[in-house]
Formats: sequence, C-alpha cells, structure tokens
Amino acid sequence: MRNRYFSSDPAQNSAAVALYDSVKALPLICPHGHVDPRVFADPHYQFGSPVNLLIIPDHYIFRMLYSQGVSLDELGILPLQGGSSLRDHREIWRTVCAHWHLFRATPTGIWLRDELADVFGIQLKINSRNADAIYDALEERLARAEFRPRALFERFNIEALATTDAATDTLAHHQAIRASGWGGRVIPTFRPDAVVNIDTDGWRENIDLLSDVSGVTVRDYATYIQALEQRRAFFKSMGATATDHAASTAWTETLSATEAQAIFERALRGEAKSKDAARFSGHMLVEMARMSSEDGLVMQMHVGSYRNHNPAIFARYGRDMGADIPLRSEFTKNLKGLLDRFGNHPKLTLALFNLDETTYSRELAPLAGHYPILRLGPPWWFFDSWLGMTRFLDAVVETAGIYNLAGFNDDTRAYPSIPTRHDVWRRVCADWLAGQLARGFIDEEDAFDMIRALAYDLAKQTYRLD
Amino acid sequence: MRNRYFSSDPAQNSAAVALYDSVKALPLICPHGHVDPRVFADPHYQFGSPVNLLIIPDHYIFRMLYSQGVSLDELGILPLQGGSSLRDHREIWRTVCAHWHLFRATPTGIWLRDELADVFGIQLKINSRNADAIYDALEERLARAEFRPRALFERFNIEALATTDAATDTLAHHQAIRASGWGGRVIPTFRPDAVVNIDTDGWRENIDLLSDVSGVTVRDYATYIQALEQRRAFFKSMGATATDHAASTAWTETLSATEAQAIFERALRGEAKSKDAARFSGHMLVEMARMSSEDGLVMQMHVGSYRNHNPAIFARYGRDMGADIPLRSEFTKNLKGLLDRFGNHPKLTLALFNLDETTYSRELAPLAGHYPILRLGPPWWFFDSWLGMTRFLDAVVETAGIYNLAGFNDDTRAYPSIPTRHDVWRRVCADWLAGQLARGFIDEEDAFDMIRALAYDLAKQTYRLD
Amino acid sequence: MRNRYFSSDPAQNSAAVALYDSVKALPLICPHGHVDPRVFADPHYQFGSPVNLLIIPDHYIFRMLYSQGVSLDELGILPLQGGSSLRDHREIWRTVCAHWHLFRATPTGIWLRDELADVFGIQLKINSRNADAIYDALEERLARAEFRPRALFERFNIEALATTDAATDTLAHHQAIRASGWGGRVIPTFRPDAVVNIDTDGWRENIDLLSDVSGVTVRDYATYIQALEQRRAFFKSMGATATDHAASTAWTETLSATEAQAIFERALRGEAKSKDAARFSGHMLVEMARMSSEDGLVMQMHVGSYRNHNPAIFARYGRDMGADIPLRSEFTKNLKGLLDRFGNHPKLTLALFNLDETTYSRELAPLAGHYPILRLGPPWWFFDSWLGMTRFLDAVVETAGIYNLAGFNDDTRAYPSIPTRHDVWRRVCADWLAGQLARGFIDEEDAFDMIRALAYDLAKQTYRLD
Repeated sequence: MRNRYFSSDPAQNSAAVALYDSVKALPLICPHGHVDPRVFADPHYQFGSPVNLLIIPDHYIFRMLYSQGVSLDELGILPLQGGSSLRDHREIWRTVCAHWHLFRATPTGIWLRDELADVFGIQLKINSRNADAIYDALEERLARAEFRPRALFERFNIEALATTDAATDTLAHHQAIRASGWGGRVIPTFRPDAVVNIDTDGWRENIDLLSDVSGVTVRDYATYIQALEQRRAFFKSMGATATDHAASTAWTETLSATEAQAIFERALRGEAKSKDAARFSGHMLVEMARMSSEDGLVMQMHVGSYRNHNPAIFARYGRDMGADIPLRSEFTKNLKGLLDRFGNHPKLTLALFNLDETTYSRELAPLAGHYPILRLGPPWWFFDSWLGMTRFLDAVVETAGIYNLAGFNDDTRAYPSIPTRHDVWRRVCADWLAGQLARGFIDEEDAFDMIRALAYDLAKQTYRLD
Repeated sequence: MRNRYFSSDPAQNSAAVALYDSVKALPLICPHGHVDPRVFADPHYQFGSPVNLLIIPDHYIFRMLYSQGVSLDELGILPLQGGSSLRDHREIWRTVCAHWHLFRATPTGIWLRDELADVFGIQLKINSRNADAIYDALEERLARAEFRPRALFERFNIEALATTDAATDTLAHHQAIRASGWGGRVIPTFRPDAVVNIDTDGWRENIDLLSDVSGVTVRDYATYIQALEQRRAFFKSMGATATDHAASTAWTETLSATEAQAIFERALRGEAKSKDAARFSGHMLVEMARMSSEDGLVMQMHVGSYRNHNPAIFARYGRDMGADIPLRSEFTKNLKGLLDRFGNHPKLTLALFNLDETTYSRELAPLAGHYPILRLGPPWWFFDSWLGMTRFLDAVVETAGIYNLAGFNDDTRAYPSIPTRHDVWRRVCADWLAGQLARGFIDEEDAFDMIRALAYDLAKQTYRLD
Repeated sequence: MRNRYFSSDPAQNSAAVALYDSVKALPLICPHGHVDPRVFADPHYQFGSPVNLLIIPDHYIFRMLYSQGVSLDELGILPLQGGSSLRDHREIWRTVCAHWHLFRATPTGIWLRDELADVFGIQLKINSRNADAIYDALEERLARAEFRPRALFERFNIEALATTDAATDTLAHHQAIRASGWGGRVIPTFRPDAVVNIDTDGWRENIDLLSDVSGVTVRDYATYIQALEQRRAFFKSMGATATDHAASTAWTETLSATEAQAIFERALRGEAKSKDAARFSGHMLVEMARMSSEDGLVMQMHVGSYRNHNPAIFARYGRDMGADIPLRSEFTKNLKGLLDRFGNHPKLTLALFNLDETTYSRELAPLAGHYPILRLGPPWWFFDSWLGMTRFLDAVVETAGIYNLAGFNDDTRAYPSIPTRHDVWRRVCADWLAGQLARGFIDEEDAFDMIRALAYDLAKQTYRLD
C-alpha cells in the first residue's frame, strides 16, 4: 500500500506520498550492519529453512516470545553445552505463529509482515491458521536461485553494504567475494572491542591472535598500537571506510604514555585492577580517534548497552540472546576527553549511537550542532521503530538540523529485512517532513531536498562511500 | 459525549468510537487502589458532605490550590495538633470552585467534571457561579440510598476491588464484608513497607504489632520471616492476590544470612547504621519475591517518590498532603539483584510502577520484553492522565508489546472517581489504537483484541483475579 | 500567513486561528533577555550592517555553521588576540546564505525568515541566489529612522523590557534612558553570578569592583552581604523587579554563619578548596532567596549549562561562542535546601529554567504544583522552538496547570527577533489549546482565558510588572 503508515490527515498524507515516491527507488546505502559476509562469498549459498533464516538469528523475535513463557529451546536455539533444543523447524514456525499477536504494534511485527509481502510475495497474516501455508511458501521461495544472497543484493538495489568484523578477523570471506569477481560492494568494518576492552572474556587470547594476524608481536603498549594500526590499514585495503566501538558508557580520557603502558602490562600479566578496564577503554577511544584522524576511517560509537543482563540465559545459550538492556547515558562530560583533543579536527568524523533517548535533545543534538567532527547515528536497536524514529527527528532536528545526521543504517543480521527497514525509515522521514510542510515550517524545495538527504545522501557522505 | 477526548481526525475518531464502544460496558477490574474498606463493611455507610467525599481525601486537589496560595486550613485539612481548620464545608466548597480554573487541562479537572456528570448527574461547570447549586445537588444525591458505597459498587460494575493494607492490619473490615454476605468482591493487598523498611518512623512498634497479630514472636531474623509468611498466608486466606512495595529506589540485593541477621538485630536494638536501611530494604524485596514465587501473590513495586518533601507541611498536617515529589530512577542495575535470582521464575509476576518517564523506553520496556516475570504497571500518579498515558503507550508498546503490560488500575482513594478513571484509560487506549489502525500498523482484528486486553483482560490475568 | 504553523486538522486549525487572533495584538512583556541597554540610551543609535545586527551577536547561527566546517573567522567573529577575521560584511552574508539550508526545520531558520518578512518587509527566501538582494534591502531599512531601536520598541508594542546586568554594573545606560525622558520601559535585572561564584575568572577583581560601586568596602562575609543588599536596592530603584542566577546544578544549602564566613575568607585570600565553590554557590542561592523574600525581587534560576565546552574555541574567541552544552539536572533533592527555608514564603517568587527536558514532568511540574513560591519559566535556549515548547506544555500542564507557569520571555540578544519569538510562542499556545479544545478537554471560555494568560498575563504577574 503506497501510503501505508502515513498520517491520516489528508494534507500531510498526500505530501508524504509525494516525498516518499521521490526516494523509494533510490539505492540502499547500508554502512553499518551484521550480515554474515559468508553468504556473499559463496555464489550458491542458500539460507536453509525459514526458521534458519528468520527466527534463530533474530533476538528481537525470541526475546519477546521468551518474555511470555516460550523457552529458547522451543525456538531451536542451541544450548552451548548441547542438549535438547527443538529441531523440527515447521513445529518451531508454528509456535512462533501461534504467539505472533505479541508483536502487534511492534517494529518486529511490521518488518516481518512487510518482508513477507515485499520480498517473498506472501500476503498472508501471520497466525496459527496461516502458519503452514506461509512455511510452505517460504520453503518454495528459498529453494529458488533468485532468493540466493547475491541475487537478493541486486534485487534490493544495495549500493554498498558494510559488515562488522573483529579486529583479528582475516576477512577471508571478503577476500573470497573480491576474488569471485562479483560486482556487489560488500566491505568490512573494523571493530576492535575484543582487543581494546581488557575485561573482555578471552582478551589475552585475542591479543595473541592479534599478534598472529598482524604479524606484529604484541609485547607492550607500543607494539599493541602498531598491531592495531596494521589491522586498520589491512581493513582499509579491503574496502573498509569505518570503525565501530561498543561501550557501556561514553567515557573518554587520554592517559599518559606511562599510565597506558602500565595498565596494558598489568592486563598482559592478568593483574589489571578494578578501574583499569574503564580507564583503558576510555583511553583507547581517544587513541582510535587519533588513528581515524590520520587514516580517514569514520569512527562509530555505540554507547549504553548492559550486555548479557540475564545470567541464566547467558550461561545456557551465550551472547546475543535478547538480554541486552539499555543504561542511562551521559555525553557532555564523558566525551570531553575525546572532543578536547579531536573535536575540531578537519579529517575526523565520529558518528554517535545511543539507547537513552534523553540524550537526544539534551546532549547529542547540542554537541552535533557545534562540533565539526560529530554526526548523529539514526535511532538504534529498540528505537529503530516508527515512533522511536519520529521522536528522534522531533528531538534532534530543531537543534542540530538534518545535516548533522548520519542518515540511516539498518544495523541488522536479518538480511532479507534490509529493504523493509530502509523503507520504514524513508516513510518515517516522508511523514515527518510532510508534517513540517503542512504546517509551513519548510517549503517544497526544502522538503524534497531533505528527504533525499535523509534517504540516501547523508549516509553516503558520512561514511565516505563515494 | 460519546466521542469526547478522541482525535479530531475523522478516520481516527470513528475508529476510536468503535473501539471504545466495544469495551465501555465491560466490568471494572480494580486490582490496586486505596479505597477504605470501612465503606463497604457497613451496608448503611454514608459519605458525609461533598467536601468529606471529594476534597479532604484528595491531595491532587489541595496540592494545586496550595501552590496558588490557598492554605490547607481553608480546605478543611485538620492540623495534627488540632487548631483552626475551617469547618464550614459549603464555604470550603466555594473556595474550591472559585479556584477551579487552576485545573483547566489537568486530569483532576477532567475526572471531577466527568464524575459529576456521569456518577451524580450534574452537568454544571465547576466555578463560583455554580458552586452552591452543585453543592446542593451533591448533598441531595449523597443522602440517597443509591449513593451508598455498596450500591455504587454495583452500579459501577466493579468485578473486583483490591484495597491496600498494612502487613499488621487485622483486616477487620474485610472480615466484616465477608461476614455480611454481600456479594461484592473486595480483597486486601499485603503492603509490608512499615515492617520491612527499618528506617520507618515507629518501625520498632510495628514489629511488636507484627508479633501480636501473627502470633509469632519476632525475636530475630528467622522469626521475623516466619511472622511475615504467616501474615501473607492470612491475607491470602482473605482473598488477597497481590502484595505491594513502595521504595524510593529499585535497589535489590541478596544479603548473606549472617548480614541480614546482623542488620535486623541492630535495628531491633535501635542501632542500625546509616546504610543498613537501604540494604535491608533491597534484601527484603528479594525475599518478598522469594515468598511470592512460593505462595503465588503477585508482587507490585512502586518506585521513585520522595515522600513528605515539604517539612513545614509534614510537621503541621502529616503524610499524604500533596508534597511527594518524583525522583530520577534506575532499574537496569538496581533490579538485577532480584532478577538474577527470580527473573526467570515460572510462578512469579512482578508489576513495576515508576514516576520517571525516562525509564519507560530505556529500561522498563526492554526489561519487560525479556524477563518472563515482569509486567509494566500503568502510568502512576502524575502520569495517570491523557497525555501521560499516551506517552506511556508510545514509549513501551513498540519494545514490550501490550501483552507485557498489567492493564489499568485506578490507584485512588477517591472512590466515586473510579468509573471515570477507567473510562479515561479506555478512551486513551481506543484513541491510541485508532491511530495505529488509521496508519495501518495494525488491522481491525488486532485492534479489537488489543482494546479488550488493555481494558479488561490484562489486569485480570496479571493479578490472577479469575 | 495568518494560520502558519498551525495543525492541518481543520477543527484544530480554525480554533487555533481564533485563539491566536484574540492575543496577537497584545503588548509584549519581555521580562528576561539580553538586549544591550546601550541601544536605547542613545536616541539616534543605529545597528550597523546586517551582519552586525543579525550574525555576529547570534551564536545560534554561527554554532550551526561551525558544525559544518565554516570557521568563526569567516563569519566576522574577532579572535581575542586580534587576527584575521573577515571584515567584508557582504561576503560574510553570502557565506551565511550559501549555508542557510542547514537551518531548515530549525527555530533559527523560522525566526530569521519571519523577522525579515514581518519586521523588514523582505519576502525573499534566504539562499545564495537572494543573498545580495536581501543584503541591499536590509541596508536600506537600517539606514532609516524608523528602524532605530526606540522606534522599533514602539512598533513592536513592547510594554516592558528587562535587560540582564552584572551586580557591579553602574546601570549608566539605564540612567541615560531615564534621563532622556523617553517613555519606553526598559529595566535592569540583577545578575550577581560573577560575584557569588567564587570560581569565576576574575572573581577577586569583581569583589573590588563591588566595593567601589556599592560604597561598602567588602572585608568579610558580613560586608559582602551588605554590599549585595546595597546593589539590589539600587537596581530596584532603577526599576528592576527581578534577579537572575545561572548555575550548572540546582544545588542549594544553608551554610552556618561560621562556614560561610570561612569559605568567603578563603576565597578572598585565593585559598578556596575544591568543594568550596559549589557549596558557597548553593548557599548564596538560599541567601538570594532570603533577600528576595524581603525586597520582593522575583528570583530566576537558569540551571544546567556546561559553559565553554570547547577549549579551542574558548581560547581563541572567548565566551558565548555557541559551545555551551546542556547537562543532566536534578531538582527534587538539590533544591530542597532552598525550599525547606523559603518554599512556603508568601512574598517570594522563584522562576525555574532548565535544559534537561526530563525534569519537566518528573520534578519541575510536581514541585511547581505544590510549592507556592515556584513558577516554571518557558522552555529555554535549545528548547525555545515549536516542538520544544509543545513538549513543555505536554509535559507540565497536566501536573502543574498553566497558572504555575511564568508565561513567555524571549531571552534574546537579537533585538529585532523579539516580535517573532513572541509570535511563535503565541502560535504554539494557540495550537496546543486548540488541540485541547478540539478533543473536549477544555471549553471555549477556558481556551480564551488560557491563551491570554499564556500570551500576556502570566509573565506580567510573575515578574510583578504592574
């Protein structure tokens, strides 16, 4: 439906349709996400069952089912230690469909409905009655060559897609993609969390791996920095234009060379003190800004998630099981360590993402409306929704304008949902701008320029994807 | 007016009317509130004057008048030490009416207007001109048998109404209600704040009272726990299905048996240290969760009020005088002590209430969208208003869905306002769902199911009122 | 356009037009702002070039341009140490116009467009194409007598305009205005930040200046208080009705006489300790409340800005360069020191301003809906925008009503933007009340009373400008 989700006010509705129509066919820029590059490395890759494709990798879906008493075993999630997870995928699908009312008025509900219709051509409502028919139709589609990842990439009209990769990753899949001669632009993103946060499980082993892959034996802080610079250069040679950093807070500071060296050596010896990890992480964010100011990789920070909040789930299934919960965030004081040194740097771009909406108008928009290096990432995670994105525009545009935004990214591992997610963003922006136009804050020339910027240009420029 | 308060957009308005019509006649579920059970114990109970009924118990009303220079004495509030409060209720009523413009666009203004019209059949606008006429009409109504509490209970179509009662309450009025053979379901709620928060004024005396009413002499931590378990069993035998806990923060932790015992004994000796109270309260919340996981009483937490903020008012008039002010709240870290132990328990339900709207989307909805025990209570206190409830739905539904909500409760001591409060909630939900429907996020089947859940089913299920 | 910015819903739109029409011609009450009184002291004062008038004093404009890579030098801002700032004002204007798309959908964009149209009669869209034509038209207008400050004051229909002045100011310009016999009511406001915050740069010199202008030699805390009281009396004799206080937090406390004396003497000797400044500032806020309770000056607090956040900009250009960033705020606990002593005082009025929207509904509205001394100032700074003001009304009115608000003030140093800013506020209020009316929360009598209160009466009453 051409005007779905738009305001029912006639003036706003017709303006929204016109704005949306002007951008709906633009290519998709996907500068941040979690699609597995493996799916593009093999030209004949197939997605497996509908449950493999749509349920097992999607913690948005199983967190909600879990909250209402469905165990993860019933959804096919494999316990770490092995065990009795359900293997009958049709049965899992029926369980999901029987509980699909839980997703009424949620973005997950909207994405999957639109994805079934627009990507798979299935118009059936998701419920118990239609469970088998939808499953059958999906199976039929997934068996076809036109539903393989590369074919979908072309159908989706993706201009560039960035994956997210550990600093120690060999980027073998990216190398295979290049070697295959396929024209799709799939590029890596440098994500060094597991080697810069010294309290990460397995950090010491990660450092050894870093030595191996970089060819620089990490003996001390100086060689550690060299190894990281080597990896960044390698990622860049493989097409990367950005780095990504997750942190529970936005704390940044510059340690003295002596302090940084001392903490790093304590960490190597397994003797880091209780405050060392937070300080070292804050220091490494500044250090990463320094490197970005030199090599031009766009820096992203994702701040404010309490990872693996539920210890029982973590013990049984591991990470990314829908139990990451947002934390209150602060940027005005915390980011000052980085901004004092690099906030005015002409070559640096830093895109900020956050899970605490109170920072939007209070801190993020005022900061982005002043510091040249800053761009605001689109609403992240729980806020990547119609109302969440609308609140974001309401909160930040009056102070930062739209030209300090980073456009959209889908941040998803659910590959076939990508066009739907971009479509929702484009519709939100069209609807929001239509409201501005209907009230006379902006004129038509403004509105059509702005929708194009929000739908396409800003992401491309921010991430230097020219 | 059938479509009052609904959006003036024609599509949304007509959908809202249809949705509202489908639930307006459903019985009222009142699982949390502060009506005095005394009014039901005596079949011939009368409410006294309009001021006794509508003004003196309602701190929503006198806080606003006080903020604009009307003293509480002028409103008939009795000073604790006796003194000169105004006794002429007609004069008090005139003062209230002369200031009623203060309540324009407030929920209090809406509730009283709707209550006069719908409960008492009085269509006059509240102002000085109409003060006497309204007073006369109210006096006339209150003298009639059909305006006695039990008659109103039936007219209001209340299916169940829970009061809130101290852990040491003998529940004499509830016993009298049962003994009378009257069919109205009025049940107690176990609220142990005054015996679990060791910094409560009179805590030591409350412990003696606990010993008396439980028959378990509280000598130490073990007998204290036994006495509490006895009281819970007694409340349950009197029909209770829930407990309620007020706390300034959501802090929870499990103390070791030794620590709990040591703090409790210091408290008994009047020697508790400065941090003991906060830690013991946090521990007792976990202990209450443990008991609820065994006896099945639904647990409620009301977090974030700074009680009796104005010392001059507190000294002269005591508690509940409109001077309780919200505090910033945090759940992700604070609730972890409880969730780590009981967050996945199949028998426990924990309903959370808060006065800091920033927690809605950032913490409460993500937590409720994962942990099976959690349900989100409706907007509390200052947020039990048209815009407050709308913001709540906007903030939580996209992340938690509606099926992790606890439906509605009126939380009021203003008994005749109960139907009006439920009516406003039902209208808010109808209007909100109509907006979702008009934009195409949900379809009609969804919308009609959801309005029924929000208006009736969710409260009944959450509080186990079958 | 008579109905610009109003909702496109027909019912709300026509009600908004009627409400707006009823107040659009009311005089402007400007009780807080930063217009330089010099412009009124000289009857022949002229504003200089369009850039002198519109760009160089407006950090709203140059912060946004700076965030997109335009240096402040290119905008004519003079470095403190002298240097190469651009002096060709037409060239500066062209740079601004070439970047004006940055202000799409921002209040700055709306203000300047409306100001050009309504004050200067220039209907051209601001962009590169029109840059020279607009510049020429502005130059032509500014050369005319009817665009001098006093003529505009009368054309703007300003009933009273308060400036903001240091406690040590001689108020020479205000004296000149009085001496000139001109009838415009321009009054000072007592702002003692630079003498009460002992960590201010140059505080010791300010104290000497305070001794000089007050005629009270400040030797100790007692004479310091006397000197401040002298200055307040002087400001009051010059027409002041209010004081203003900026603070990074709302912390208030009453120090003992001994403590206050001890800290003050440490400060005089340049030996203040690290926590002294915060405690002394908190104490002086209470002391200022004490003085206001005696002399009747309305007290204003502006809380929550991190001043001069960008050290590179501060070092090169100094203060007020668009690099002040909001901080998270707290009032429930922080303001208690002041409220415990003066919260119920019959003669005191305290107007609160804040940059953290989360405090609106959680703390500010509940406090103002109880304490007689409190009034809520209108949205400040980044929130003085269509959506910012709408969110403010949404967040506070249900709890505090409108009669605990302080009406509007423009808080601007951009003198010719004053009518536009009041016009936007009046339109926001008309649109908001029209929404309340269209839904039936209020009736027409209410709505017309409320729009007048919000547009005119509340500011006049709060600031005692009778």
